[in-house]
Amino acid sequence: MRRWIKTFDDDGSVEELGTKGHGLMAMNKLGLPVPAGFTLTTPTCAAFFADGEQWPQGLGEELDAAIAALEASAGRRFGDPTDPLLVSVRSGSVVTMPGMMESVLDLGLNADTTEALARRTGDRRFAWDSYRRFVQLYGDVVLGIHYTRFARAQKQFLSGRELASVDADDMRELALLLEGVVDKHGDAFPSDPREQLRFAISAVFRSYNSHRARYYRRSRQISEEAGTAVTVQAMVFGNLGERSATGFAVTRDPKTGVPGIFGEWKPQTQGDDMGTASVEAFPISADEDERGGSMEVERPEAYRDLVAMARQLEAHYRDMQAIEFTLEGDKLWLLQTSAAERTPQSAVRVVVDLVNEGVITKEEALLRIDPRELEYVLRPIISPDAKRKVIAKGLDASPGAATGRVVFEASECREHHERDEPTILVRLDTSPEDIQGMALAAGVLTARGGQTSHAAVVARGMGKPCVVGCTDIQVDYARALFYAGDSVIQRGDWITIDGGTGEVMEGRVSMLAPQAEVGSMADLLDWADEVAELKVRTNADTGADAERARALGAVGVGLCRTEHMFFQPVALRAMRRMILADDPRSRQRALHEILPIQRQMFLDLFRAMDGLPVTVRLLDPPLHEFLPEREQDIADVAQSLDVRPEALRARLDNLHETNPMLGHRGVRIGITTPEVYRTQVRALFEAGCELVREGLDVRPEVMIPLVGLVSELERMRELVHDVADEVIAEFGVDLRYHVGTMIELPRAAVIAGQLAKHADFFSFGTNDLTQMVWGFSRDDMGRYFSVYQREGLLSESPLSAFDEEGVGAFVQMATERGRATSPHLPVGVCGEHGADPAGVKFFHRVGVDYVSCSPYRVPVARLAAAHAALEA
Amino acid sequence: MRRWIKTFDDDGSVEELGTKGHGLMAMNKLGLPVPAGFTLTTPTCAAFFADGEQWPQGLGEELDAAIAALEASAGRRFGDPTDPLLVSVRSGSVVTMPGMMESVLDLGLNADTTEALARRTGDRRFAWDSYRRFVQLYGDVVLGIHYTRFARAQKQFLSGRELASVDADDMRELALLLEGVVDKHGDAFPSDPREQLRFAISAVFRSYNSHRARYYRRSRQISEEAGTAVTVQAMVFGNLGERSATGFAVTRDPKTGVPGIFGEWKPQTQGDDMGTASVEAFPISADEDERGGSMEVERPEAYRDLVAMARQLEAHYRDMQAIEFTLEGDKLWLLQTSAAERTPQSAVRVVVDLVNEGVITKEEALLRIDPRELEYVLRPIISPDAKRKVIAKGLDASPGAATGRVVFEASECREHHERDEPTILVRLDTSPEDIQGMALAAGVLTARGGQTSHAAVVARGMGKPCVVGCTDIQVDYARALFYAGDSVIQRGDWITIDGGTGEVMEGRVSMLAPQAEVGSMADLLDWADEVAELKVRTNADTGADAERARALGAVGVGLCRTEHMFFQPVALRAMRRMILADDPRSRQRALHEILPIQRQMFLDLFRAMDGLPVTVRLLDPPLHEFLPEREQDIADVAQSLDVRPEALRARLDNLHETNPMLGHRGVRIGITTPEVYRTQVRALFEAGCELVREGLDVRPEVMIPLVGLVSELERMRELVHDVADEVIAEFGVDLRYHVGTMIELPRAAVIAGQLAKHADFFSFGTNDLTQMVWGFSRDDMGRYFSVYQREGLLSESPLSAFDEEGVGAFVQMATERGRATSPHLPVGVCGEHGADPAGVKFFHRVGVDYVSCSPYRVPVARLAAAHAALEA
Repeated sequence: MRRWIKTFDDDGSVEELGTKGHGLMAMNKLGLPVPAGFTLTTPTCAAFFADGEQWPQGLGEELDAAIAALEASAGRRFGDPTDPLLVSVRSGSVVTMPGMMESVLDLGLNADTTEALARRTGDRRFAWDSYRRFVQLYGDVVLGIHYTRFARAQKQFLSGRELASVDADDMRELALLLEGVVDKHGDAFPSDPREQLRFAISAVFRSYNSHRARYYRRSRQISEEAGTAVTVQAMVFGNLGERSATGFAVTRDPKTGVPGIFGEWKPQTQGDDMGTASVEAFPISADEDERGGSMEVERPEAYRDLVAMARQLEAHYRDMQAIEFTLEGDKLWLLQTSAAERTPQSAVRVVVDLVNEGVITKEEALLRIDPRELEYVLRPIISPDAKRKVIAKGLDASPGAATGRVVFEASECREHHERDEPTILVRLDTSPEDIQGMALAAGVLTARGGQTSHAAVVARGMGKPCVVGCTDIQVDYARALFYAGDSVIQRGDWITIDGGTGEVMEGRVSMLAPQAEVGSMADLLDWADEVAELKVRTNADTGADAERARALGAVGVGLCRTEHMFFQPVALRAMRRMILADDPRSRQRALHEILPIQRQMFLDLFRAMDGLPVTVRLLDPPLHEFLPEREQDIADVAQSLDVRPEALRARLDNLHETNPMLGHRGVRIGITTPEVYRTQVRALFEAGCELVREGLDVRPEVMIPLVGLVSELERMRELVHDVADEVIAEFGVDLRYHVGTMIELPRAAVIAGQLAKHADFFSFGTNDLTQMVWGFSRDDMGRYFSVYQREGLLSESPLSAFDEEGVGAFVQMATERGRATSPHLPVGVCGEHGADPAGVKFFHRVGVDYVSCSPYRVPVARLAAAHAALEA
Repeated sequence: MRRWIKTFDDDGSVEELGTKGHGLMAMNKLGLPVPAGFTLTTPTCAAFFADGEQWPQGLGEELDAAIAALEASAGRRFGDPTDPLLVSVRSGSVVTMPGMMESVLDLGLNADTTEALARRTGDRRFAWDSYRRFVQLYGDVVLGIHYTRFARAQKQFLSGRELASVDADDMRELALLLEGVVDKHGDAFPSDPREQLRFAISAVFRSYNSHRARYYRRSRQISEEAGTAVTVQAMVFGNLGERSATGFAVTRDPKTGVPGIFGEWKPQTQGDDMGTASVEAFPISADEDERGGSMEVERPEAYRDLVAMARQLEAHYRDMQAIEFTLEGDKLWLLQTSAAERTPQSAVRVVVDLVNEGVITKEEALLRIDPRELEYVLRPIISPDAKRKVIAKGLDASPGAATGRVVFEASECREHHERDEPTILVRLDTSPEDIQGMALAAGVLTARGGQTSHAAVVARGMGKPCVVGCTDIQVDYARALFYAGDSVIQRGDWITIDGGTGEVMEGRVSMLAPQAEVGSMADLLDWADEVAELKVRTNADTGADAERARALGAVGVGLCRTEHMFFQPVALRAMRRMILADDPRSRQRALHEILPIQRQMFLDLFRAMDGLPVTVRLLDPPLHEFLPEREQDIADVAQSLDVRPEALRARLDNLHETNPMLGHRGVRIGITTPEVYRTQVRALFEAGCELVREGLDVRPEVMIPLVGLVSELERMRELVHDVADEVIAEFGVDLRYHVGTMIELPRAAVIAGQLAKHADFFSFGTNDLTQMVWGFSRDDMGRYFSVYQREGLLSESPLSAFDEEGVGAFVQMATERGRATSPHLPVGVCGEHGADPAGVKFFHRVGVDYVSCSPYRVPVARLAAAHAALEA
């Protein structure tokens, strides 16, 4: 009728026993060598707190019984002055919280038992050293005496000697001196092992509610209620003589996933004892050994045992394991096993290998990988063991790490690039004029903007590491430096950014290169495609983007933002002339210059997507976005257009919009300046027809942005049909195409039933839709969003994590209403949420046909789509 | 079995006969003297067009029969060379289209019948003059010969003589000469009266589809299908001798509604003959006669007949009538009667008088007044007969007309005001700094902005005429002038604006003062309140506004925009210090200065609304709206805050938002800077408690703007409760209050069911909701909206005319979801649509409890609410 304590022979869940207790129980049942012990369960911890930090009724009796059983099994007795049982008391929560909670080792020692230990081990110095360490650890963890008091006393005692040079007698004297420190600063040091144990257990329970543990849980959103289990085990000694050691082994390479035993061992150490001077670590495997000392060479039998046990554990857990062990003399003890931490590359390789080894199924493999990890497989990442000094944190806009010299002007990127020096472009925010510089930078850091700001969108499209909205930095262009906390970073200084975490680091931080061969990922994604129902297209504006995405498995272009075609220098100049034109004829002339450039870009795009659909969004941003903003640019543009700068500035003022996001953009341009849309459609169909003549399979889908009125769509559909049919007739080819609408205004969702009468497809622009539904602007939200996060009102930006409750209601409404009119209406999502796994699940559920995302996120979306299908 | 033609003895609808034909039929049945005749129906016209402008089968025969009957009744025969019948052929559409379509008079004349007419009337000159005019009119209308050809020939013939001096023989010669003009430029002039009639009927049908008629219908949204009826009547001659005349009488004063006969008569004229030199008009009533010649004095018997007939017609139609008559010798003929055009003042007076006279019911009176007209009753309007030169047209932002000298800076308004000279403030757009100038200007004109731009909202609140978004003008501040078409208006020039039509006129245009006593309107609105279910509150930011609105019948404040309290100079300075504060202490100090100013404003407001609810919206606009924008203002503010202008400019840059409408505003300020909301709430409750102590009945409702998340509302509700309960406890009084949320984000509508758990009431901010649902910005939409109107995509801005289909879906959804949670949840509308009659009907239907609008629109909303209830 035990309630509070389980032995390693019992059954129990991870929730009840914590990961450590559960692992020990499992290893025990597998017949693996684990030191005898028992576990106080997490409900015991909960009862402890519920009762005002009192031991629950009956726990004392159960503990006595458990100790009795432990004594029987270990063949030693607790506090026995001839052969004493020593135990470790370790925390073990349900979710691993490394370093957050307390452990006590060597418990059971006092002056008497220490001498007994000395006799039994024949190593008196070891015994008194153990007591010394126990007194310090217990004094600190259980009695709350600050460790510096012990350090000070010890330093005084040693008066310049090394601890290693101290003999057994002096060690005894030192240990008793430290015991005196306890007596002086707290209660008398308890010599009764059972009392020691009770106090230690309570202290470990309490450590679950320490300030830092609570902070850790809150920052990682771990539930407060879980509590911790406490495992009490007979001590084994990795520091008992020359043949003892502790170690840590991983069953595959945590960086790459390559099979084999990886890890380190440290002869003559005690696992959790971090107080001693650092001891040199040696590799476990001989393959990794460059200077001798590997466990494989030094202790071949123990190594063989370890390899065999590792295999047994992997087979049992069906996953890569991280194993803690202690070698006491020739006896190998396992102290803990758990799923190994791994890099994204390694994670993918491991599950694919496990499938090929017949250990897990393809479905299991798919479900074991967090889709978001895949984005990192193709990018450099910060080495897990790299030293770093984080000086600021922004939004994780485009993953991957980059290191480079700080520059503040896009033009400087080129100079450094020519010298083969990587740069990090640091700006308040970026604008179209910075794109060419961004392409040459190793990474981009902006102080302003959100997940869909210009910098973020462009960087993601380029697959370039990027941190945006980094309000921790103050950029001073004039002095060419930025401040971050206490640091001042000057132009030319090295920094490192991690676009996957948003961290900005001083100096060069060591990195892992991306996986050279993506074979494992390709296999995994093939399996994903077998089960997924949602298709994955890409957002691509150039042939190169489209090719890259196709190689990563995109089955079409879901969003080509034609405005990016206008940023090519000749096109941009013509575009500016078009916008600033005073009369229809000059406007037409400018458009005439733009046409062949656009046509060429469509040629590249269609060619890259031969046989696959290509959805082209007609011009979306307000025209003034193509005009210069900075004084120098205005002067340049004025000169190139042959107008006075003041005249140009007056025109710019006139075109200025208070709220460009809500401005004269999207279909509104098509209605007021139809010649712009006509030119785009002509360029598109001329390119398409040319390729049809070459024998390619071209499948254009023309998409009208920002529709809010049925009549807007009707007009534009007519315009597209007019121009397209004219071009097709001119070429005399057969080219099928579709015309559809974006759903990105709340109003469009409401009238979707009517829109569907005039649309061959719907595509949700979830970026804009989210902004309209929430009434915020991606460019400005940084100002208050950090407060919302800090205050716990929102954990992630709705621009990154799809807002199912709010925005989802509109996606569902529009899909249902559209399909009520047109039952087979194709429906896609082309906002950034196309690669948000939670979003993808929702899209799957409401019947969306495809999502579209930036090329490097295509793998993410493919796996997310598989998850959605498997979990449905 | 007639199909195409009806006589005045038949029955028929207005749709079938047109207003003119239907009126003649009615007058005929009332026994009033109308010339004999018949009407070709509107289906006849439709058949004419359906058949490719061919006469439908059977019409020829029916026409012959109708002429035979007319001949019998008139006792004369068509084309009779001894006593010929002459007829008029007049168009008569269902909706009056004054001056748009053609008529032909004196039809039936040729050389023979003219001599016969001469013999019968004994006036040969009259007869040949009639023929001359017939030839010209017929030539122009039926045969399409430009009237200038006739004018040229006549001028040549007269060679300097006056037409009046021409004798009968010469008149004959002239008439035959003009007949020769027809023969030369077209087919021979038809002398057969039946042929004349057939051609004339076809020509009148065709005039329905003339360019100008179609333009007129399109511009007034009159259906194209209706077609026109054609009425053929025996001619009566107002130009036959000295005792003949034509005239126009109205049964009450069209400007004021005062009962009595108004109008004019013109001796010796032919009604539709506009070709002759203008003839002097005399008043009908002796009361209006200042220089002799009134019909009452000159022709007392005819006058008595007219008054009697007018009474009979008013009694029959139960409305004020406009009557056209002809006096042929002593015989009074009525040619047309219709509901009289009237000013808004007159309209209200007339229906109230008609109720008091027992002619119509109160409900009829209510339904006869377009609620929008009531806004004009309290404002000066352009006199209906004033001469005006319209030089530009913008949006009708705040009704009423104003005339004044042009100024471009708000500061200039004061100088002119001190000289008692009215000003029109002309700007690109206005900002808070202009408010004091606006208060002193007679009217405001801006080149930019929409119906809810700063200028529009502030002007409406002040009841000041205002035209915004007037893209027809180009303002040049530097040269202190603006261009409008060909006009250049300099500073100091007089202009007149009509805020009810959006027109801008050169010079001073004569105006009608607003009704001095609003007795009739007050009666009408009392009747409205008896039937209305929706309550009407007001948007008021000051005690003065609230008093004005209460006098106009508002039963509470539905929206107090507290930000307007910050524009008071001392408060504004403190506010700026607060926003720019570097540390919490200076921020708190600045808020401390603001508190008493706000408290005083709340005191005024609550006092004005003693016993009625006052809904106060906590600060809504982004804080940067309180900061200076213009260079001079920045310098001034920098000085007053004792910082360097560059430092201030840097801070301003930092606070700049790309899309302020979607920015850091509303509840987001409350979350990030709760001390601002706390100060507002404290000021509000200190004021409330003070007045409770004085014995007033204070009913505050605190409203949180821009809520999109449940947690935002929860936090702010807690904040309000904390501060309010603290203040109430300090004062030790009993003060009940409510805390509610605005619904102005699409997301809020979706989660309304959850929001209702934390809200005592909902209030729809339909301005912002409309902008979010449509994705446009009131400040920028002018840029493309005019194209949308021109192209027929939208007739009115959704900011003025409530968008039932789109925005309405959200109002309905939120109301339903909110009441599903909280069945008695009070729901109001505080956007500008509170006074849009169509919007009010919708709000009534979905169960909204009250609307709130600017003070001068309260009457509009009250009547609209009555309409909604009556029509439900």
